[in-house]
Amino acid sequence: MPLIDRNSQGVYIIAATPFTDTGALDMASTDKMVDFYLETGVTGMTILGIMGEAPKMAGDEAVNFERHVLNRVDGRVPVIVGVSAAGLDNMARLAATSMDAGAGGVMVAPQPGMVTEAKLNSYMAQVCAAMPEVPICFQDYPQTTGVQVSVDTIIGLTVDHPQIVMLKHEDWPGLTKLSQVRAKTGTGDVPRLSILTGNSALFLAQEMQRGADGAMTGFAYPEMLVQVVSRHQAGDVDGAEDLFDAYLPMVRYEQQLGLGLAIRKEVLRRRGVISSAKVRAPGPSLTPRDHEELTRLMARLDKRLKELN
Amino acid sequence: MPLIDRNSQGVYIIAATPFTDTGALDMASTDKMVDFYLETGVTGMTILGIMGEAPKMAGDEAVNFERHVLNRVDGRVPVIVGVSAAGLDNMARLAATSMDAGAGGVMVAPQPGMVTEAKLNSYMAQVCAAMPEVPICFQDYPQTTGVQVSVDTIIGLTVDHPQIVMLKHEDWPGLTKLSQVRAKTGTGDVPRLSILTGNSALFLAQEMQRGADGAMTGFAYPEMLVQVVSRHQAGDVDGAEDLFDAYLPMVRYEQQLGLGLAIRKEVLRRRGVISSAKVRAPGPSLTPRDHEELTRLMARLDKRLKELN
Amino acid sequence: MPLIDRNSQGVYIIAATPFTDTGALDMASTDKMVDFYLETGVTGMTILGIMGEAPKMAGDEAVNFERHVLNRVDGRVPVIVGVSAAGLDNMARLAATSMDAGAGGVMVAPQPGMVTEAKLNSYMAQVCAAMPEVPICFQDYPQTTGVQVSVDTIIGLTVDHPQIVMLKHEDWPGLTKLSQVRAKTGTGDVPRLSILTGNSALFLAQEMQRGADGAMTGFAYPEMLVQVVSRHQAGDVDGAEDLFDAYLPMVRYEQQLGLGLAIRKEVLRRRGVISSAKVRAPGPSLTPRDHEELTRLMARLDKRLKELN
Amino acid sequence: MPLIDRNSQGVYIIAATPFTDTGALDMASTDKMVDFYLETGVTGMTILGIMGEAPKMAGDEAVNFERHVLNRVDGRVPVIVGVSAAGLDNMARLAATSMDAGAGGVMVAPQPGMVTEAKLNSYMAQVCAAMPEVPICFQDYPQTTGVQVSVDTIIGLTVDHPQIVMLKHEDWPGLTKLSQVRAKTGTGDVPRLSILTGNSALFLAQEMQRGADGAMTGFAYPEMLVQVVSRHQAGDVDGAEDLFDAYLPMVRYEQQLGLGLAIRKEVLRRRGVISSAKVRAPGPSLTPRDHEELTRLMARLDKRLKELN
Repeated sequence: MPLIDRNSQGVYIIAATPFTDTGALDMASTDKMVDFYLETGVTGMTILGIMGEAPKMAGDEAVNFERHVLNRVDGRVPVIVGVSAAGLDNMARLAATSMDAGAGGVMVAPQPGMVTEAKLNSYMAQVCAAMPEVPICFQDYPQTTGVQVSVDTIIGLTVDHPQIVMLKHEDWPGLTKLSQVRAKTGTGDVPRLSILTGNSALFLAQEMQRGADGAMTGFAYPEMLVQVVSRHQAGDVDGAEDLFDAYLPMVRYEQQLGLGLAIRKEVLRRRGVISSAKVRAPGPSLTPRDHEELTRLMARLDKRLKELN
Repeated sequence: MPLIDRNSQGVYIIAATPFTDTGALDMASTDKMVDFYLETGVTGMTILGIMGEAPKMAGDEAVNFERHVLNRVDGRVPVIVGVSAAGLDNMARLAATSMDAGAGGVMVAPQPGMVTEAKLNSYMAQVCAAMPEVPICFQDYPQTTGVQVSVDTIIGLTVDHPQIVMLKHEDWPGLTKLSQVRAKTGTGDVPRLSILTGNSALFLAQEMQRGADGAMTGFAYPEMLVQVVSRHQAGDVDGAEDLFDAYLPMVRYEQQLGLGLAIRKEVLRRRGVISSAKVRAPGPSLTPRDHEELTRLMARLDKRLKELN
Repeated sequence: MPLIDRNSQGVYIIAATPFTDTGALDMASTDKMVDFYLETGVTGMTILGIMGEAPKMAGDEAVNFERHVLNRVDGRVPVIVGVSAAGLDNMARLAATSMDAGAGGVMVAPQPGMVTEAKLNSYMAQVCAAMPEVPICFQDYPQTTGVQVSVDTIIGLTVDHPQIVMLKHEDWPGLTKLSQVRAKTGTGDVPRLSILTGNSALFLAQEMQRGADGAMTGFAYPEMLVQVVSRHQAGDVDGAEDLFDAYLPMVRYEQQLGLGLAIRKEVLRRRGVISSAKVRAPGPSLTPRDHEELTRLMARLDKRLKELN
Repeated sequence: MPLIDRNSQGVYIIAATPFTDTGALDMASTDKMVDFYLETGVTGMTILGIMGEAPKMAGDEAVNFERHVLNRVDGRVPVIVGVSAAGLDNMARLAATSMDAGAGGVMVAPQPGMVTEAKLNSYMAQVCAAMPEVPICFQDYPQTTGVQVSVDTIIGLTVDHPQIVMLKHEDWPGLTKLSQVRAKTGTGDVPRLSILTGNSALFLAQEMQRGADGAMTGFAYPEMLVQVVSRHQAGDVDGAEDLFDAYLPMVRYEQQLGLGLAIRKEVLRRRGVISSAKVRAPGPSLTPRDHEELTRLMARLDKRLKELN
């Protein structure tokens, strides 16, 4: 099965976890969703992250879902599994199960409380020791974790731990940080680091221009992410940004913290990808007014895309 | 001098405080900036907020700046003065000085620590008692204050305190909250409440559609804010949103927390409004790469605006 | 099996989860620990809370541990199970499993994000609906959850939901809040509410004097908690406080956030209650200097207790 | 006038700012308070900190108060002035004014937002450059500032900036950190660093045993702080801790965040040191129940001290 590495690039779509209206895992929708993502041209997939509602699933549900996705993907692209957990034992167990089932790597965000860089370094050393050789994507997301990480700490982590091969960059504001990490990796004694950007892709065009290798986010129109990255890689910087800007009103709408998950599931439902937009409780839900607004925004997007072509 | 009231609408631009390259107050640029804002058609102005770097000014500087602005505006539009302070005495003194000098009202954000609604209610009662009859804009900005305020608490504040006439709405995600505050004010026993939206205008089109009276933010192209609000008020909802979307890449760029102030001052400098983009220390500054990126974004904005016309 | 109710009182000791040096569940130590707690005279027990390292246990481990404890207790005192979880489904499942196994109730802390009282009320309504008739202890611990709860909200919760019968009070500073909740419950239309206090018992004497029904915390000398509460209930207010003050240096030492768990397990180990002071990773550990300090503090405590008698 | 340096030791009492019942500066009480502090044997004084309600004073009030205190102290002990401010200009101006008036140094806490150690280092370099040669006490108080500082960062700051001569240590839990800073300073290439501990002195005995040079806090019985430090320095480690433990119930009572200021002022009032316990709004106040509780605690303290002698 394909693994992530320091040259991974493209779009690693963050997959939703489809439920039925009553909240059960919906495996039929899961298959359709996996097929849909692959048809849009994503180069990887990330499951069981926050957007995947992993913390709201029972342990066996999570494993069942993971195996189902991995079977359906069948090695066509690497699949990253979110394994962040309060305890190292649980984390290592899920990592091992995942790699055995064919995952391409795991994603780890620092636990709240790793609040000095000394503590973070010590924590990540424990994490790496607990899952030797498993390729790791380090998630830098201080808005959620409360853990602030400097550029030098990121460099130190990837130098000290060869298995930390990828950065999910979603600090904000973070454009200068991205430029610095890119400039300081892949040169001299510091190995290359794959940088995929998150934060709902709100700055994807700028991030590609600053050297990102692609995106890792759950935008409900993954074809935009794929095309922006591929146009950029083909040298069409303006074309990439034109397309991005056309989708920006929707990107901005989905980026609403918490609520964004309900919006994404509803867009995927409207697009015929999943059967239900159900989010497990406690979770966000859309008001009738939100539904009208989303209808308007989707129609405006269609209109704008036609103008562009 | 004109006062804010429950029917205030339009655009209250949040004014920067212009400094020279060495960090002194730049009164010539202040005059140009005031004139520029008024020429774009703003219906009000807000000074000495966070964007105005008020906490970095000496007490007498703040008063000098305020008087200078009020003189230049000369009653053409109401001017709101940010008076949030750790102590009530300082707050009341600045409010009194401001109203004497011709301000149209003051803006108050809850102090950190007013963390239950009981505490917030008690605090706002003290604030109102300390500045009787001064019209107040209540700033609901939990991302910065840490104080979460429910719809019912907002309603209660404006019912209990007739002088609380305006809400600066910048909770996020906050669209449903805006709809609810609009629905529950101006009906029956609850008086109307002027609602101006902030949060860098990232959702201005949606907010107008949900009943906002306008915007209060510091976007460096105030003419966009003015036109979006006036088109909307004239019934051209689509035209308002088309224009907004054209500016959205720049709105999103300026919305970067902290860094946005440096970007706004640089845009105002490039547009010839102020002489220096100086931000007082400690403060954000733009890298050479940021400057290039801004150049690109400004050029793209010009191009897009030409396409629209 | 005995259930918690609105008149529950005494000491509900928060139980550690004993591990072997290699981190496995230590059932022999668990038995000894349960026996020890019961011999000190506790009137209840709370398991799988934060101090119980529940988030670091696998799902089946938690259930095994819970069943083992409930068997050993064998109905002699009510056992409360901490069921706070990110998702309602997981919470309801654990609550049902627990009650089936003989638990006396569950403890629920609000999830982060329930940051207005409207959101909290809605959340607790969902929680109650998901576990009908299960007696609930509501944990008010804003230092950890980030959720601030006013006195009126607490009253509203216990009035609206008859199953919310107990408050674990650990807001800080919180003495006035405790007085207010006591004054406003058990009178007129508001039913009585059992109030047990936490926050490591740092103010236990004062809290009893203000009307608390007892303590719920994990102090490694539960006999102190038991005697302070029983002396107080017997009218010996001074004697209760004298004894409390003798232990205060140790109470204060154990109250260190995070580190306190390592200290408590080490004290229990030294007292012969559990075999290993192992805390699962990532977790606090004691330095050699800490061990010396603890030795000194334990010796000083012995000396002081002798003086008192 | 005496300056703080790397060998400063003893007790730097954090002074309250006495107000009249109507909230005006009370200079007569200020004189009595200064005399009282000096009579207890403090070796230094710190004014205009958070406990001094500096953020609630007008700029000229703060300067008047500072000059008054410095005159009254008249060079008998060094006086540290809290100068933390949002802007460097204001900070540097207050530092210069203070040193001109005879202060012995200034205290600086990092501004919120200096959230990586790279940012903090850059900020402190700016601070030092803005007030060359002014002796600085660096306040490490993450519970309030939100800025986490590692041991290595503290070492780096005092090595890079010879003017950073003192650490106010109030991280919590922080005993191991204190041991590490002590072990790593005053040896080899790292100069000695004066370490005074804060956090309301809750661990003063332990901190002295781990190598602190003394205390900087505002406990309303400064004679305890003085005697604990001096007994410890004289080698009477047990006697120091016995005395400390006698006061611990009161130390713990005053340590209540926010409320502690009202308690301290009330104790000082009852002891005849200041005329009014007035705290400026918005601020904590004591309920009648709190007053009774304080009366009880003060009486118990007297009784316990008699037992000790």
